[in-house]
Amino acid sequence: MEMSEIPVVTSPAGMAAMTERWRLAGETIALVPTMGYLHEGHASLIRRAREKAGKVVVSIFVNPIQFGPNEDYASYPRDLKGDIALAAAEGADLIFAPEAAALYGPDFQTTVSVAKITQGLCGTSRPGHFAGVTTVVALLFNLVRPHLAVFGAKDYQQAAVIRRMSADLFFGIEIDVAPIVRESSGLALSSRNSYLSPQERAEATVLFQSLRLAEGVVRSGERDAGKVIEAMRELIDGVASSRIDYIAIVDPDSLEPVTVIDRDVRALLAVYIGTTRLIDNLRISPDPGRP
Amino acid sequence: MEMSEIPVVTSPAGMAAMTERWRLAGETIALVPTMGYLHEGHASLIRRAREKAGKVVVSIFVNPIQFGPNEDYASYPRDLKGDIALAAAEGADLIFAPEAAALYGPDFQTTVSVAKITQGLCGTSRPGHFAGVTTVVALLFNLVRPHLAVFGAKDYQQAAVIRRMSADLFFGIEIDVAPIVRESSGLALSSRNSYLSPQERAEATVLFQSLRLAEGVVRSGERDAGKVIEAMRELIDGVASSRIDYIAIVDPDSLEPVTVIDRDVRALLAVYIGTTRLIDNLRISPDPGRP
Repeated sequence: MEMSEIPVVTSPAGMAAMTERWRLAGETIALVPTMGYLHEGHASLIRRAREKAGKVVVSIFVNPIQFGPNEDYASYPRDLKGDIALAAAEGADLIFAPEAAALYGPDFQTTVSVAKITQGLCGTSRPGHFAGVTTVVALLFNLVRPHLAVFGAKDYQQAAVIRRMSADLFFGIEIDVAPIVRESSGLALSSRNSYLSPQERAEATVLFQSLRLAEGVVRSGERDAGKVIEAMRELIDGVASSRIDYIAIVDPDSLEPVTVIDRDVRALLAVYIGTTRLIDNLRISPDPGRP
Repeated sequence: MEMSEIPVVTSPAGMAAMTERWRLAGETIALVPTMGYLHEGHASLIRRAREKAGKVVVSIFVNPIQFGPNEDYASYPRDLKGDIALAAAEGADLIFAPEAAALYGPDFQTTVSVAKITQGLCGTSRPGHFAGVTTVVALLFNLVRPHLAVFGAKDYQQAAVIRRMSADLFFGIEIDVAPIVRESSGLALSSRNSYLSPQERAEATVLFQSLRLAEGVVRSGERDAGKVIEAMRELIDGVASSRIDYIAIVDPDSLEPVTVIDRDVRALLAVYIGTTRLIDNLRISPDPGRP
């Protein structure tokens, strides 16, 4: 058996049976739900799961129902062979890689949706997106029944939505959110970075630069969220290939907009670089003593 | 310990911990979800669960989110003490009777909804009703994690909706639907029968009479669903206190309307008797050799 050998399960029934056996044997199980095309950001999630649970399941599923009709479902990058190698190298115990038709049969008609916290931010730009996410995550939670699920902080609103859904429906699953992994340039790792030309890749660093700028402006005393956003907008508008989808400064839990920055907040943004939509976010503390 | 003694759990965490222990001990668990005010119909569900599983949980919860603003949430009959005695006498192992605030906290904002099969029939008369049902059932399924859940056929559309939701979200729970229990008059047992005056109670038998009439008409050769419905309508309209909400003849699985009765169908109806809305249904087979 090679080091990179790892079971790849494609059938929902097979998946459920496997983790049921583990659970009855007293194992703790972690799930890392992904859309594949795994990078070092995902690797960090798998390592985190590895530390916390006896068995680690990585799901790889490009979920059609979370893409809008004009979005990149068909072109979303896929590399199952590379994904299997990466997940195995990071110590995952099993890969769940179902076909779309295995999860969504012809009579499928159920939706799990979350109200308030999905409005605004990415929810405004991508109607239906979060209902697609919470539906597939609920379904994966039921198939795998993990004790723990690990998500990345790059999709900050998604993590908050899933935490809400999981708590509201009493899934009894710990939702763990791991820090964003960045290139040395500051660019947050994303499978969609593969869409960028070399020049766009350089220009895409403006997302993180604008977050750092916001942090600096707040640290030097600015408390007006509108003014902080204005500074970010100016910086980003200086990049010709950029088009801002949104910039927001919000409460880190409710995701409600904050107008006066008198406590820790989260700055979030979505920006098109050329035709590629990228997102990023950063915790910003008005207290300069905090990291 | 008296024969009628039985643990009553009110906290969600306590409920989840109890069945987790049973599951790890290898028990099979059945859930009978009810809104309380238990009658012989519920008793038959508990007995059915008792036959099929080692541990039987009866949940008693008048679920506010499945009632419309002008419906009878506040006045819905309640008798927890009587319910505990009945469930214990039928051999239930545990009662789960949470407060509404324990299931729906102030930040609750998640909905589980089913599309096609909730349209029409009760879904038309009671907008939002089935989303309230599927949301609370998903939540109860997660708290109890039963192997089996037993529902009554009186709420025929509800059972079909729950079966769809459970399959779509891969709950891995067997959905068992038990036959309707009737008084000797033919009236289907319902907690809402308690709203009826003695005279209304007699008049309410027209629901089942109309179903029997439909069966007879089909057995004597009528295949046109419209004509069968017309015969039912005429019979019911003869009762002064009645007001028909709907009468339908549908495919037993998809609940799509049937126009030509060339196979087994389900006849369903909802009728107000005075101010009380009652429902009933019957399988109708065009083959006179079948029961």
